[in-house]
This record gives sequence, structure tokens and C-alpha cells, in this order.
Amino acid sequence: MGPTAVLLLSCPDRPGVVANVADFVWRNGGNIVHAEQHTDTVDGIFFQRVEFELDGFAFPREELADVFAPVARHFSMDVTIRFSDERPRLAVLASRAPHCLIDLLSRWRGDELDAELCLVASNHDDHAELCGFFGVPFHHVPVGDDPVAQDRAMQHLLADHDIDLVVLARYMRVLSPEFVDRWSKRVINIHHSFLPAFIGAQPYRQAHERGVKVIGATAHYVTADLDEGPIIAQDVAHVSHRDGVEELTRKGRDLEVVVLARALRAELEHRILPWGNRTVVFD
Amino acid sequence: MGPTAVLLLSCPDRPGVVANVADFVWRNGGNIVHAEQHTDTVDGIFFQRVEFELDGFAFPREELADVFAPVARHFSMDVTIRFSDERPRLAVLASRAPHCLIDLLSRWRGDELDAELCLVASNHDDHAELCGFFGVPFHHVPVGDDPVAQDRAMQHLLADHDIDLVVLARYMRVLSPEFVDRWSKRVINIHHSFLPAFIGAQPYRQAHERGVKVIGATAHYVTADLDEGPIIAQDVAHVSHRDGVEELTRKGRDLEVVVLARALRAELEHRILPWGNRTVVFD
Amino acid sequence: MGPTAVLLLSCPDRPGVVANVADFVWRNGGNIVHAEQHTDTVDGIFFQRVEFELDGFAFPREELADVFAPVARHFSMDVTIRFSDERPRLAVLASRAPHCLIDLLSRWRGDELDAELCLVASNHDDHAELCGFFGVPFHHVPVGDDPVAQDRAMQHLLADHDIDLVVLARYMRVLSPEFVDRWSKRVINIHHSFLPAFIGAQPYRQAHERGVKVIGATAHYVTADLDEGPIIAQDVAHVSHRDGVEELTRKGRDLEVVVLARALRAELEHRILPWGNRTVVFD
Amino acid sequence: MGPTAVLLLSCPDRPGVVANVADFVWRNGGNIVHAEQHTDTVDGIFFQRVEFELDGFAFPREELADVFAPVARHFSMDVTIRFSDERPRLAVLASRAPHCLIDLLSRWRGDELDAELCLVASNHDDHAELCGFFGVPFHHVPVGDDPVAQDRAMQHLLADHDIDLVVLARYMRVLSPEFVDRWSKRVINIHHSFLPAFIGAQPYRQAHERGVKVIGATAHYVTADLDEGPIIAQDVAHVSHRDGVEELTRKGRDLEVVVLARALRAELEHRILPWGNRTVVFD
Repeated sequence: MGPTAVLLLSCPDRPGVVANVADFVWRNGGNIVHAEQHTDTVDGIFFQRVEFELDGFAFPREELADVFAPVARHFSMDVTIRFSDERPRLAVLASRAPHCLIDLLSRWRGDELDAELCLVASNHDDHAELCGFFGVPFHHVPVGDDPVAQDRAMQHLLADHDIDLVVLARYMRVLSPEFVDRWSKRVINIHHSFLPAFIGAQPYRQAHERGVKVIGATAHYVTADLDEGPIIAQDVAHVSHRDGVEELTRKGRDLEVVVLARALRAELEHRILPWGNRTVVFD
Repeated sequence: MGPTAVLLLSCPDRPGVVANVADFVWRNGGNIVHAEQHTDTVDGIFFQRVEFELDGFAFPREELADVFAPVARHFSMDVTIRFSDERPRLAVLASRAPHCLIDLLSRWRGDELDAELCLVASNHDDHAELCGFFGVPFHHVPVGDDPVAQDRAMQHLLADHDIDLVVLARYMRVLSPEFVDRWSKRVINIHHSFLPAFIGAQPYRQAHERGVKVIGATAHYVTADLDEGPIIAQDVAHVSHRDGVEELTRKGRDLEVVVLARALRAELEHRILPWGNRTVVFD
Repeated sequence: MGPTAVLLLSCPDRPGVVANVADFVWRNGGNIVHAEQHTDTVDGIFFQRVEFELDGFAFPREELADVFAPVARHFSMDVTIRFSDERPRLAVLASRAPHCLIDLLSRWRGDELDAELCLVASNHDDHAELCGFFGVPFHHVPVGDDPVAQDRAMQHLLADHDIDLVVLARYMRVLSPEFVDRWSKRVINIHHSFLPAFIGAQPYRQAHERGVKVIGATAHYVTADLDEGPIIAQDVAHVSHRDGVEELTRKGRDLEVVVLARALRAELEHRILPWGNRTVVFD
Repeated sequence: MGPTAVLLLSCPDRPGVVANVADFVWRNGGNIVHAEQHTDTVDGIFFQRVEFELDGFAFPREELADVFAPVARHFSMDVTIRFSDERPRLAVLASRAPHCLIDLLSRWRGDELDAELCLVASNHDDHAELCGFFGVPFHHVPVGDDPVAQDRAMQHLLADHDIDLVVLARYMRVLSPEFVDRWSKRVINIHHSFLPAFIGAQPYRQAHERGVKVIGATAHYVTADLDEGPIIAQDVAHVSHRDGVEELTRKGRDLEVVVLARALRAELEHRILPWGNRTVVFD
């Protein structure tokens, strides 16, 4: 199969959206390979993901937005267009804990992640050798005694490398509002609890103190409100009284790794439509 | 929302199917409320479920099959048409174990199951009082010393009541090929293992002897081959060395109940497309 | 196997506890059939559950507490003694939603619950017929315009029937501190979220608004702080953007039923040691 | 806490076992830190794991087997003795797929695995660089056209390095009976299905063809019968019609990694008692 275009659409729910979009693609020689839709009946919003082959399509991809514009305008659509062969430029930010980073590096090397992994950056210098082994440039952006400057330096680094998508792989720094705004809905974080439980620091300690029987991990888009952004993926594991904070932490790592990878994969396959504080994630 | 029509379509994968179906509905005044599709790229088969409102549709529902026929023919489609307000006539068959039966009765009374629950039938006479309480007619169809006659009597009972859909809620009789054929793809069974493991009798005993660490339950359409029909839903539970056959049986009951209800619900919402020995189950 | 005694012990962790308890049982002719222990190494607390056959034991069960007292004193133990053949007198309290109630009634009738189910009580009069069918006395204790009087009337009802153990099967009233104190650690509630997320009213609505990808249910002992008591059991289910509040509620019911039954079973098998705001639940 | 001894005991179920073992430890100055037991009531077998601190114990560890022998003899016990500070010499065998290998290497470097990871060996030469990065010697033992010689060469390699414990991390060779016998109950394999379903080659392809809705992974001891050894750990994931063989394979990898690590951890913590074709795995 050749390259495809993906339309991610949302608009007020009205008759004819599905037919008009399908007709647009068909009339112009595109072949739809995937089409999923969802209607939020409470708020009356229609969501759709349409993927079609570019081979045989009547217009070059650069003109797609323009030729689709009349349909989008007619239905008051929000439209995002992605192409399957345009791999986003990805940066992974990490702190000390290596498990999510090493997992992403392994998946990337195993061709599981359809992205340019341009760089890894950290507020610590622990991961240089690891990144070197996997052939990914590593940047140390230390905090020192000026956290504001570090945040800014990190932004510069990402901007200098034209980064589209940022993954916080247990990066333990809070991003500035400016940072969040600049990569709006393009920063994915893994939080080590089933949000909204145990927001903030040391969730495994909090979980142990509350005596829960399940622990979890949550991948979400980063917004200005800490741990409050739209949730992309969550999973949990059963625990018992035998599990102290250390065991919860260890078991949690296996969750974090899988949940973050699942969320990143959904993002890279253009299957996520964030909407308010929620997400539509097509399978 | 008024009544809807559901088209369940499968055909060789070709460009234009999505657009033509959407256009058909739209051109005739229907409003699509759900549309899911799946392409089996290995076998080149396209599956689609399209649900649209009948209010405003240009033709009465009786003519839908005819007016859609040209589209169906053009794409060599298999077509099944269902209507949201035509509740299938449902029969539940059970043997001694009451857990699945009582669960279905409860859900039915709680308006979770969109069907006419016309009758419960059993090869034992245990459940008359239970069915009486829930207001569902109970029929005892004993086996005695003539299993063939019993199978036939059961078929007559179901035919006399114009039963569309049969649920085997731990009904421990093997159906005759004639029975299976008569309600082809309209008989759902719950098997108490994660098929294809532990086919046949006493799966919990088999599971215990093999020393597995998970047990499961499988809801599937009944075909001529025992426990080999298309799987609709499966789920599992973790077990340990502490669980003897009795505990496995008890834990398994909770699985059976939920898995059977999930499969039945998918059937009643017209979300299943059986295909060969597999199923496409849209969420 | 004949009747057994269960010792539920907790004490500061010191060498010799296991040996002294085992020796006590053995020296007096008891045969240990189960012995589980747990040490909280952070707080230095030792927990043990020891179950032994009374057949052949040197003392009648009435004297067990007294003859064990020297061991208990020596190790500064908290001791609870239960006997396998002394079925607790159980009351189930429910409001309108029937799913947990009907499940408990079914399990009780199927001999899954080792208790005297003495009565069902409700602030509504919906469940009289259901309880009648299962042969359990039903009491309507309406709230009217005096919630304090209702709470007191409920206490009287339970006291009059010598109730040991109370299960809140989606009983939507907050119990008075006096009520909670009177049946301290003998009231089990099912909350329809994975606590500590979504404390309070309408957790499924809260879950939907937060856009979570898992929902849960929590069984816990009731304490003076709403939804803050020691957690006994929890479970979760995956959900998606397709699930509105109604679907979350429906899926959640299946969780509530199973989690409550699991917690009650642990209680009836004397496998729970509450401790502070947590529980040790031996498998 | 200082080093501990672990007694893994099994014997015919008789009164007094628990008391005699506890008394043996206590009388000789040991402090029991963990004690779990299980009775298989069908076969009348008693299993116990007792862990006690060696500090203060009356005998040096070398004499433990001898001084315990009278107790063991009296109750006809099978006894295995392990010490917490004697790390088994571990070898990991892999073929082409790197995911389980890299996961074990990461966990080992993160101090999650309490073993000497002495070597990695493979029938392919793919993983030399990876092992070099993690500082573990890599051995290429090619098959060429003499599989019997390769099996023997692998045995020599393991024997030369005094390997106690072998992990097959997606090693796609069948071991000879001689190999299996030599490391009896000390070879752990990960099979990429929920056994006993889909024994043998290409389980994900088999799973896809059968149309299952869950896939699984199984860690088990290797015995002479392929995929028939005692199961240590299993887990599953939900899948759907959308998952082709490639997606099943990818999702399955995440299961394999976690299940193998869980089983290995149980082995390294001396929590497994194999028995016939089953295992008792204490939590």
C-alpha cells in the first residue's frame, strides 16, 4: 500500500457529514482504507477519522487542505491533516529512571515507532551511553539553580531540531506554560497512577498509604494544569498488602512502559482526536 | 432518536464502497448515526456496519432491501438488514446451573437486553419457579431415553414460538446438525474455558489438571463442530495453586455470566459480522 | 473436615511468634490446615491467620480465648477468634438499584455465602417481591422527612435481629457515626469508582467528565469518613470514548457485583485483618 | 536484614508439620520472616515455604540440611534449601527476537534480578553488540547442519560456566532430553500463547486463524514434552478483529516480556515448588 492521507475531523453533528466526506474522497479518486466515527450525543459533536490512499488521488497532497476547505467550511469542521509517510520529529525527555526511555529506544530500533527519533534530552547526564548505543543524540540540559533558564534551554533545543512531538518518559520537571503552549497537544506524559487518583508527587507512596488493591499508569497530553490534561491511555495491575512502596514502584514500571508506548503509538498512527479535556482514540 | 436501520455488509475490498453506501443513505434522506468498517487485508474482504435514522428516509423500511439491491449487486455484497425497533424473539436454554439464566433474566428485567424474551426451556425442571418470578414462560423438555426426540421437541417448541435467537445459558446438550442449521448463526453458547483450550467436558477439571494460571470463558456461535464456532467474546481471570476445581468453577461462573451477556448484547445491537470461523465485532 | 477455629493475630514483629503460635496449636492437639503471615517491615507489625481443626483439640472452643491468652499477652497481640461453623448473621441494605442485591441473593441461595442472611432492608419499598422469592425477610425503613430517625430505626432493626455483619449493596444513605461505631469494621460498602478517585456522588458522571479510560469499583469497610475506609477489594474495566455515562454505569454494575461478592467472601472466610486505614487480605 | 535460608518443603499432609518446622527454626535461634503453606486436599500433599534469618541461627548454613534431616525424615519430606545471598548463575538463551533479551538485560542492570547473569548464548550472532553494551559475555553457538552437535555444544558452554539456571528468552530450538534432564526444573521458557492453547509453532498465526478475542503468554519449566511443562505464570491481552498476525505478534511481545520476568523473579526469590506437572507459586 502506498502513502495515505488521514483526515481528523470534528464538527457539530449534522446529517450528511459522512456522505459528503466519503463522496469528496471518492469523487477525487481516493480509496478509503479506514473510516471511523464517533458522535458525542450529549454535546452534539461528530468526530471522524478518514484514511485514504494518495495513489490515484486527483490533487497533490499540498493542495488537499485547500480542496477540502469547502466541505470543512460547510460543516464548520476542525480539520487536521496528516500523511502516513511524514514521520514526526520526535524528542524524548527523561530524568533518572531509565525504564521508559530504554523501552522507547528498543521499540524505535525494532521499527515499532513510525517517527524520527531526533534526540533524547535530560536534566541529568545519566543516559548518554545508553543513547549512544542506540544511535540517538543525547543532550544534557541541567537545571542548576535556574529552573526557568533550563526550561527555556530545553525549548530552544527542541525548536532548533524542529521537534514536532515530545514524549516525557518519566521526565520529572514541570513544564512552563510557555513550553506547553508552544507544543500544544504535542507533548505526551506518563503519570505513574490511574489519574485522577494520586495527582502530584510520589503516587506509589500515596497508593501504599491509602491501601489500594490496584495501581495504575496514565498517559496524557500535557496542559497547563499538572496531571489534568486529556487522558490517552490507562492501565492497572492488581496489588496486595504484600506490596510495599518498592514493589508497587517495580510493578508500576511495567505498566508505565506499556501505557506510554500504547499512547505514543496511537499518536503516531494519527488515531487521537483531543477534545476539551478528553480524547477520542480510535482503535 | 427514532428507529434506525442497520446494514451489515461484507464484500471483496474495492475502492468506492464507503462512498457509495454513504451516498446511498444520504441521497435518500437518511442520517448516518454510526458507521464502522474493517478491511481484512490478507483476504481482501471489506466489512461495514452502517446505522442510519429511518425518519426522513425516502422509502418505507420494507423496500430498503430492494432499493439497496443495485449497490449490493455492484459490489457483490452479502447484506443483512436489521431495524433497531424490531426486537428479536429470544429463547434461553439452560440445564441445571442457574447462574447464567438468572443473570440474563435480571438484565432483561432491568431493560439491558433489547429483545422479546419469549421463553426459557430446559432439559430439567429446576427453573420453573425462577422464570415464574421474572414473568417468563418456562418449558420443560426432558431427555428421558430418547435424546433425538428431545432435540426435535426443542426445535418444535422454538419454531412454534417463532424464535429468532437462541442463547445456550449453560445448556449441557449437544444440538443436532439439523437444529444448528435451522438457526444458523443465531445460536449463542457460553463455553467455560478460553477456547480453543479445554474443548469438551469438564474444562475446569482439565484446567486444574494442567495447572494453568488463568481460566476463561468463551461465547461463540454454535456450529456443527462442538466448541469450534466463531468466537464472539472471551475473558479470563487469574487463578493460583490455591484454587481447586471447586474454586475454579466458582470463579469461572462470574466470567461466564459477563462474557455471555457481552456477546448477547453485541448480537442484539447488530454489531457482529460472522465470517468463516471468525467474527468482526464492532464496539 | 470438621469445624475449624481461625485466629486472626497482629502484634509487633518479634522472633518466635510463628513458632509459639504453631506450638500452642500443636501441643493442644489441633491440626493447622492454613497458616498465612505477613510482616509490614516499615511499621514492624506482624500479621497472621491460623486455621486449625477443632477435632482433637484439647479444649472446648469456649475456652480457646482464655487458654491462648498467655501467648497473646506475651507478644502483645490483637486477637480475633472465629469458628468456621458459626455463620455470621448478615443483613443486606439496598436502595433502588437491584443488581448487587439480586447477585447476593443468588449467591446465597447457591450456597456461595457462608452466612445467615437474616434480612434485607431498604429506604425504598422496591425489593419486597424479590426478597420474598428468595425467602429472605424484607424491611422497608423509609426516610420520610427525618433522616436521623431513619438511621436510628435501621440500627434498631439490625440490633433486634442480632446482626453481626452489614453489607451495603448500593445503599445510598450515609450512615451516622453512631451506626458506624456500633458495627465497627463489620459494615462493608461497595463504591462505584476505583477509590480514591471520584469520591462522593455520581462517580460515573465524574469519570465521564474526566475522560478516563478505565472505570472501577471498590469494596471497603465503612468508617466515619465517607469513602475513606479500609479497602478490601477493587477491580477495573477498560472503557473508551464510545461509553457515555449510561454505558459506564452499565459496565460498572458488572464490576460492582463481582467486587462486592469478592469482599464479602473474604470477610465470611475470615481472611481479612483491617489495620489502620488498610487491610491485609489473605488469599 | 541479613541473609536468610529458604526451606521449600513438600510431604504427605499430616498434623504437626507446621509446628515441627516452626519449632525447629525457633529452637535453633532462627527468626522466621516468611512462612507460606498450601495443602492440596485432593492428593493430600502439604507444601511449605519457610524463610528465616541466618543471623543467630545455631548452626552454620552448611550444616542446615543435616540438622533438619530428622524432621524431614519424620514427615517424609522433599526438601530444597536455598540461601538469599547465594545468587544462582544464570544463562539467557535467545534466537533472533530481541525483546525478551533486552528486557532481562535492562532489569538485570536495574538490580531487579538477584542472579549472576554469566552469559547470553544464541544460535544466531545478532546480539553480540547488545550484550556488550550491558557488559554480559555473548556466545554464538550456531546450528549449521548438525543440530545435535549444537545442543551438545550449548550444554558444554553452560556446564563450563557452572550455570544453575537457564532462561529461554524466545530461544527457538527444542532442547534434547539430555539437556532437559541435566538442568531439570532449572530451565524456564516463555511460550507465546496461553497454554495449552496453540502448542507448537506460530501460535499468533494459529490464534488469528481461530479468531480468538484474547491472546496470551506462558512461562513454564521445560520438560521433555514440548510446551507441556509445569506452568509458572500466564497473562493475556484482549484483541479484536482489527488485529492481524503482525499486530497480535506485537501485542504479544509486551505480554511475553512481563510474564517471563515475573516467572524468573519467582524463581530467583525461591517461591516456586514444582509438583508433577503443576506449580505452587507463593506470592
